[in-house]
Amino acid sequence: MMATEAVSPSSASLLLKEYEWRDMDEADKESVVQRPRIDFGSISDIVGPIVEDVRVRGDEAVKELTKKFDRCDLEEVCVEMSQVDWPEGLGKEVTDAFDTAYENIKLFHEAQRQEELKVETMPGVTCRRMSRPIGSVGCYVPGGTAILPSTVLMLALPAKVAGCKTIVMATPPRQDGSISPEVLYCAKKIGVTHLLKAGGAQAVAAMAHGTETCPKVDKIAGPGNQFVTAAKMQLQNSEAMVAIDMPAGPSEVLVIADGGADPAHVAADVLSQAEHGADSQSVLVAIKGVDMEKVQEEIRTQLAKLPRNEAASKALTHSFAVRVDSLEEACEFSNIYAPEHLIVNVEGAERCLDMVENAGSVFLGRWTPESVGDYASGTNHTLPTYGYAKMYSGVSLDTFLKKITVQSLSKEGLKGLGPAVEIMAEVEGLEAHKQAVTMRLKSIHEGH
Amino acid sequence: MMATEAVSPSSASLLLKEYEWRDMDEADKESVVQRPRIDFGSISDIVGPIVEDVRVRGDEAVKELTKKFDRCDLEEVCVEMSQVDWPEGLGKEVTDAFDTAYENIKLFHEAQRQEELKVETMPGVTCRRMSRPIGSVGCYVPGGTAILPSTVLMLALPAKVAGCKTIVMATPPRQDGSISPEVLYCAKKIGVTHLLKAGGAQAVAAMAHGTETCPKVDKIAGPGNQFVTAAKMQLQNSEAMVAIDMPAGPSEVLVIADGGADPAHVAADVLSQAEHGADSQSVLVAIKGVDMEKVQEEIRTQLAKLPRNEAASKALTHSFAVRVDSLEEACEFSNIYAPEHLIVNVEGAERCLDMVENAGSVFLGRWTPESVGDYASGTNHTLPTYGYAKMYSGVSLDTFLKKITVQSLSKEGLKGLGPAVEIMAEVEGLEAHKQAVTMRLKSIHEGH
Repeated sequence: MMATEAVSPSSASLLLKEYEWRDMDEADKESVVQRPRIDFGSISDIVGPIVEDVRVRGDEAVKELTKKFDRCDLEEVCVEMSQVDWPEGLGKEVTDAFDTAYENIKLFHEAQRQEELKVETMPGVTCRRMSRPIGSVGCYVPGGTAILPSTVLMLALPAKVAGCKTIVMATPPRQDGSISPEVLYCAKKIGVTHLLKAGGAQAVAAMAHGTETCPKVDKIAGPGNQFVTAAKMQLQNSEAMVAIDMPAGPSEVLVIADGGADPAHVAADVLSQAEHGADSQSVLVAIKGVDMEKVQEEIRTQLAKLPRNEAASKALTHSFAVRVDSLEEACEFSNIYAPEHLIVNVEGAERCLDMVENAGSVFLGRWTPESVGDYASGTNHTLPTYGYAKMYSGVSLDTFLKKITVQSLSKEGLKGLGPAVEIMAEVEGLEAHKQAVTMRLKSIHEGH
Repeated sequence: MMATEAVSPSSASLLLKEYEWRDMDEADKESVVQRPRIDFGSISDIVGPIVEDVRVRGDEAVKELTKKFDRCDLEEVCVEMSQVDWPEGLGKEVTDAFDTAYENIKLFHEAQRQEELKVETMPGVTCRRMSRPIGSVGCYVPGGTAILPSTVLMLALPAKVAGCKTIVMATPPRQDGSISPEVLYCAKKIGVTHLLKAGGAQAVAAMAHGTETCPKVDKIAGPGNQFVTAAKMQLQNSEAMVAIDMPAGPSEVLVIADGGADPAHVAADVLSQAEHGADSQSVLVAIKGVDMEKVQEEIRTQLAKLPRNEAASKALTHSFAVRVDSLEEACEFSNIYAPEHLIVNVEGAERCLDMVENAGSVFLGRWTPESVGDYASGTNHTLPTYGYAKMYSGVSLDTFLKKITVQSLSKEGLKGLGPAVEIMAEVEGLEAHKQAVTMRLKSIHEGH
């Protein structure tokens, strides 16, 4: 990753490359935080024709593409969830677990509701701000190698809490056309209105443009592979009139650990990110006192036992560790990296919060692995990656709302504020803007 | 605009075409709300090379492009505002007016600050959400035919309230290289940190990528012509790593009026939107009782006196009126149209608020012309247009903030929540996710 001697990995045989913070200059720091590059250009070229095909031919195109990519012959592309039965055969242990997650996520997202804001900025000049749900939204739930019912909770539940009337859930079907029962369970429980049995760029395009069976949505949220992301990004700039939650890249974690952190826990956190996929990235920031040899050894041991060993191993090749002297230095580096997930496994973790400027979600203390937020603590797991935590927030209730401002002036209000508006309109050369005030002031003075 | 007889304009000689709501079917309604189409494709082709040139050659490219488009020989492309003197020669009347606007906008945007959210979703499971300013932001203040100091207030002031450290203001210079004193006054007062003397796509690219003198920004906000918008949209999808506030189209207003609305006021509101530019759109929704002849006559009379008569006349050619029977019907139509500005000039305007689903900002009652919000009531004037009010909010304090979630679990918390997480991780086949919990639970049981 970097050519300078000072920051070259201390040993090539280690699973996690190691760098020394104190030996890195500004350029090194900027270089080490660069994510593995995504080739958006060539992905865009593949996605463009798919999106256009779905726009023009609707369901027929989705069916053909689903046959091609998911090897599934769809009878119906999109169905109303009211027509879908509750899944059978799920153990109580499993439904209880998802019920717990449901309750916590609901609670935390409900708490994000804001009361209507009302401020009298001047006598008789009242400004308000009210929230309204986005009418129709699309939730993309990835399939592929894993089934991801937790993502249903993370997207559709906030949309439901927001009050969205139409909630389309898109997810790729299995070869026999079925959808995983856990995914259906969460969707039924939340009250998703439509199930689009498709994945990839074709699913995104179907929701953005609408098809014969799939309602057109106003906004699309959710993670996905590079094709899904490319389609979302293309469509947000198109005439489809659709917004997206954020650009999504491969998942990533930055773990800050001190000497008191259990090496086994640290290794498990590094690996739980790595197993997401070969393009994931884990960064360990080790404060003085961390026994890096032990951590490396734990990574090797635990990795060997993982079923997703291959993906995790690949992810580790572009993961690394940075040794720092203090929590302050660790936070400084973390803010430059701007991680999606930030685990702070240090004594007195709370005191780092004031120093955190850029992160998607923070996991504080010894007993807060990333997995709890991925599933069930209540926070959302759809978070900005790839450095976008510098300017984007994760999915929240606000993702599914608009804020509309309202102003109302009394006669007194207009008499007080109007003259300033007349002067500013004149400065800007907008005579009709001025007249809209002048005429009303005239009416007031004439006693209307 | 529409071919069906039922909804054809009642008279071609009228300045504002008139339609009857009751005669329109769903397709007619959908058709009439379509905005004049913007040809993004060909604009993109012009903007692409400009953006790339600035990315590669930085300040040199900006200088050349500014010479070409603004006929101005720049000595310095971007300067620190601390090096710029307060402007001289502004009358007290003018500075007082901008001071009033400043105070109201500051008050309303400060009121949008949210306290840190903190919820204990389960015993020992604490979820929080905290706000952090985006580090470096760019505010685009259009120039061209008008000077727009109000836009400085609407962008840079919320950024300042949010706590952004670097605030770059971009605005095209006049031919002699100077910037309007009113714009400088507002920028100095707010504490803008950098002045980028450039406009158009080149200014947007300079902020997104950074140049030798212009800091790279994380997010760009502000209105602009089609080249500015196209550049923003291209860059948000590029490797520049930059977010934007929203896609911007031509400005628009929808005025709901009843029989008690003064035809002169209604006409003035229609025209104050029209004078923005030839591509603006004004829509009048006239509830039974409105004397449309009088309104049309007022439009004709007032239009004749406007200095920006030509632009306003052109804008009126794609503006129109719809006659409806009730406030309910008016709101129904307004929600389909999703206007940037919604003026509700009716008796008891307050009762329409519950019916408003899609709008950028609402102007309520007889004494609230759009101009008050454009300048000084306290609300923001950077609002979603082109139908995007269905899914975007206007610029607000949140435009310049990220929300970061935080979770912290006590041992008890992990003991309570951990088992559910283990089950869900198993369902999703993510073993390392499970292990991160299992190992910690083991440590707890072993008394660590």
